[in-house]
Amino acid sequence: MGRAMGLAGLLLGLFLVPAVLVSTSLRRGLPPTEPEAPPALAEWESVSGTVREDSLWPLPQWLRTSRRQLRLAPGRFQLVHGAGSSAGPDCGLLQDAFRRYYEYVFGQSRWRTWGRGPPGGLGRPELLELQVVIEAADPGCNSYPRLTSSEAYHLTVTEPVAILKADEVWGALRGLETFSQLVHEDDYGSFLVNESEIDDFPRFAHRGILLDTSRHYLPLKSILTNLDAMAFNKFNVLHWHIVDDQSFPYQSIYFPELSDKGAYSYNHIYTPTDVRLVIEYARLRGIRVIPEFDTPGHTQSWGKGQKDLLTPCYSGEHPTGSFGPVNPILNTTYDFMTKFYKEISSVFPDAYIHLGGDEVDFSCWKSNPDVKEFMKKQGYGIDYAKLESYYIQKILDIVSSYNKGYVVWQEVFDNKAQLKPDTVVQVWMGNNYAHELSSVTGAGFTAILSAPWYLDYISYGQDWKKYYSVEPLNFPGSEKQKKLLIGGEACLWGEFVDATNLTPRLWPRASAVGERLWSSRNVTNLQDAYDRLTNHRCRMLRRGIAAEPVFVGYCAHEARGQ
Amino acid sequence: MGRAMGLAGLLLGLFLVPAVLVSTSLRRGLPPTEPEAPPALAEWESVSGTVREDSLWPLPQWLRTSRRQLRLAPGRFQLVHGAGSSAGPDCGLLQDAFRRYYEYVFGQSRWRTWGRGPPGGLGRPELLELQVVIEAADPGCNSYPRLTSSEAYHLTVTEPVAILKADEVWGALRGLETFSQLVHEDDYGSFLVNESEIDDFPRFAHRGILLDTSRHYLPLKSILTNLDAMAFNKFNVLHWHIVDDQSFPYQSIYFPELSDKGAYSYNHIYTPTDVRLVIEYARLRGIRVIPEFDTPGHTQSWGKGQKDLLTPCYSGEHPTGSFGPVNPILNTTYDFMTKFYKEISSVFPDAYIHLGGDEVDFSCWKSNPDVKEFMKKQGYGIDYAKLESYYIQKILDIVSSYNKGYVVWQEVFDNKAQLKPDTVVQVWMGNNYAHELSSVTGAGFTAILSAPWYLDYISYGQDWKKYYSVEPLNFPGSEKQKKLLIGGEACLWGEFVDATNLTPRLWPRASAVGERLWSSRNVTNLQDAYDRLTNHRCRMLRRGIAAEPVFVGYCAHEARGQ
Repeated sequence: MGRAMGLAGLLLGLFLVPAVLVSTSLRRGLPPTEPEAPPALAEWESVSGTVREDSLWPLPQWLRTSRRQLRLAPGRFQLVHGAGSSAGPDCGLLQDAFRRYYEYVFGQSRWRTWGRGPPGGLGRPELLELQVVIEAADPGCNSYPRLTSSEAYHLTVTEPVAILKADEVWGALRGLETFSQLVHEDDYGSFLVNESEIDDFPRFAHRGILLDTSRHYLPLKSILTNLDAMAFNKFNVLHWHIVDDQSFPYQSIYFPELSDKGAYSYNHIYTPTDVRLVIEYARLRGIRVIPEFDTPGHTQSWGKGQKDLLTPCYSGEHPTGSFGPVNPILNTTYDFMTKFYKEISSVFPDAYIHLGGDEVDFSCWKSNPDVKEFMKKQGYGIDYAKLESYYIQKILDIVSSYNKGYVVWQEVFDNKAQLKPDTVVQVWMGNNYAHELSSVTGAGFTAILSAPWYLDYISYGQDWKKYYSVEPLNFPGSEKQKKLLIGGEACLWGEFVDATNLTPRLWPRASAVGERLWSSRNVTNLQDAYDRLTNHRCRMLRRGIAAEPVFVGYCAHEARGQ
Repeated sequence: MGRAMGLAGLLLGLFLVPAVLVSTSLRRGLPPTEPEAPPALAEWESVSGTVREDSLWPLPQWLRTSRRQLRLAPGRFQLVHGAGSSAGPDCGLLQDAFRRYYEYVFGQSRWRTWGRGPPGGLGRPELLELQVVIEAADPGCNSYPRLTSSEAYHLTVTEPVAILKADEVWGALRGLETFSQLVHEDDYGSFLVNESEIDDFPRFAHRGILLDTSRHYLPLKSILTNLDAMAFNKFNVLHWHIVDDQSFPYQSIYFPELSDKGAYSYNHIYTPTDVRLVIEYARLRGIRVIPEFDTPGHTQSWGKGQKDLLTPCYSGEHPTGSFGPVNPILNTTYDFMTKFYKEISSVFPDAYIHLGGDEVDFSCWKSNPDVKEFMKKQGYGIDYAKLESYYIQKILDIVSSYNKGYVVWQEVFDNKAQLKPDTVVQVWMGNNYAHELSSVTGAGFTAILSAPWYLDYISYGQDWKKYYSVEPLNFPGSEKQKKLLIGGEACLWGEFVDATNLTPRLWPRASAVGERLWSSRNVTNLQDAYDRLTNHRCRMLRRGIAAEPVFVGYCAHEARGQ
């Protein structure tokens, strides 16, 4: 989409008042006219001296806007399927999105029952419809988003109808978000939108948020609220770190004892219904759900409900009663894992499963005489990384047999496990992650970056700038290597986070990562980002996301008593 | 109260099962039997393997508890005025507190309509009443708490009635909180309390929380919720940093233009009714409200609604259009301040007003030719600290004339303003605050400490331990000097805080300061504090305070589905 569409050129010159053209990307076919100029947004009208309410976040790849404003009458404006769209009223995903975005645009209005809108809007030309056109033969209404899904879209807002074109519904979802961000309410309750044209697509295909539901259980509502916020920031992957040492809230169908005994309590579990709900809620927002079942370390909670799964630790010749990582030397381990990952592969529709593999502590393995014997037999000497790789290798083979791809933490690569070429390696260690990215992609593997985006590490002040200023491709490597970095994730580990503080701690700090992963590489102006982010945060607040303030001040909608 | 009451001795031996006696203070007359032993709480029964739900926070000065448990039947248990109390049903403050604490004790119960409570409690002796006895002739029901108010109380919990004695209602409020913390619910929904005796009083008289409503406006509800949390932690001062450079939300009766023009908007103000509500809500919880109207710096927002109040800044011979601190050389300034502080003195009943005086930037004064002329005339040379003191001196005299005491930030003392002997100096600068405490008290002034408790400075992990480990009296000085340190305040400045994140950012981190200021000096065991704080945080959560987690885990009430 986009390049093929070629609408941008045709529309040049259509605007009646001076327009500003901005290309924020050099990777597109569209010629940038002012590549060094500050973003056009700065030229826009300011709303009553406060921060603009129509700041776009993340900034689209290509944006052209006019000072000419159209009004939207809440009682009349419609989101509809456009002529020639492969999607229609039977596309539940889009119908749901139309309802949702109508609410986001007009939700707080005092004027919704008015056909014409309040007096302030009178005299202005009116925008009557947003027509959504899906161009692919199969719009994807009932499918799941994939790594390779197109999220590109093209949006034109001109009197009397706006048109949003996308290959698939996933691009339409992103375009609807952008359209909703273009509309703003003035002090008189009028809804206005500037005539605009936007051509947009993500810079990186994998833009994730990691939530950890093991250190603290997160109620379903927190997860769903976070999915809403993710959609507002064009994130498309929920990396669900669902279990860990501390608790096992995932209710397994084959192995119900895992959560019966490993969850914090019967009230701290995700039932199959809960999991389906999360996956569907995410799907409707174009978000993939990648579950992580981390082994062989980080598995203390697994041991409670699955006998003999973990390695018994020894002190001299006697077991201490404590357990270490998954026991890699028993056949029963692999029998269990085969059945377990079969379930996981079936419950989670995404093509990828995250298999963990981080921070394996070898001390318990080293203490266990049977493990030592096994090491000798295998000829591993005292290299326990080899034992770890032996284990991981078998798990990878199991998961591959279910036609799933896998994501692993960087240690699995570092320890030289034999990985399938399509393995995704998640780089998380803070020290010299650029070098690691270089190594991983140099070996031909796909990578995602998290190291600079551990949002559980809080600090005073505007740390979003630190996250924002990361340039993911700034690592040594060929163009081919750079293409292997498919995105990144903001991680909010749960040691100090639960439903009480998750939302304000994550948002809008994660928004900085969201723009870095979506927008063009040259969108780096901190002052412009500050202005837009402040405003974007207010928009999230209006939409029910308790995003914390960026800095001093207030939100325009509060001043209107909303 | 307490020493005079002498009940402790009489009650020794009353308990039928082995009891543990703990004195956490050497300042009381009661002989400690195991001064080096860990707190008795460790001896208490554990509730289903999770953290105890009846952990006391802050830890009382003297505590004796038994393993003998009494049950409370929600349909029958009553909080009542005891025989001989000077307070009765016409004491609105206590009636209100009785209702409140009944809710806190039984609020989540599924069994409230049952007379006898659930089966689990059967067979146990029952506690029928908590009788509250106020011993002073005037219980203080309609008065305001003061720096010198007694918050001491004595609580005995034995079959069939518990008795809470206090000189004044303020001690009764603290004792009600403690009683409510003693009661816990078991897994079967029974409410249980261990037979106990507690003799308690605060170590420091001034235990404050600073909230900043200028950098971000805080809705009334946030302030009231915080007052609830303060009561749960036995704080007794709300330091309301109500206005500052950024905005002037206080709606003045004499000078309505100050908020008309200086507030963020008409919706970001505290009306006289709002202010009265905060003061009354606080009073009902034994909390003083000390308003801060900081001058001569931090006053940009004042200038919007009060012409000629601020100093015009110059560049060379020309005014720049910018303004600096309050203009100290004009008579009109003092006319305004006289009238303004007259209003403040009347609106806020507390005997103290905080006058600020921090961080005065001299550059604008230095640029202004009229100010320079004034300096010459006064013989100040180029010592602008003298000009600042000249100004402050006049403000102090104005406020004194209204029979108010005042609190000032440490610079006012450092700059050698002539202070009334009862001035309270707030020490906030982080570098060598012990030395500053030594100087302030050495000069005979009363001090409060905030320097180590700036809770807006967040960092990763359990920073409560840092706040908890501060020993306020650890500064060089005589016993007489130590007595001049009357307490401290946890400050949550508002640059990055508003209603979205205030509560989880403040609680339970401020709880650490609360215990440090209330409990005995030797209550310093971090492991014990961790256990109790984790539990106390869950209690706050049950009571509607979104306090963030201390570390991994979950709350027992969640496991019960509450």
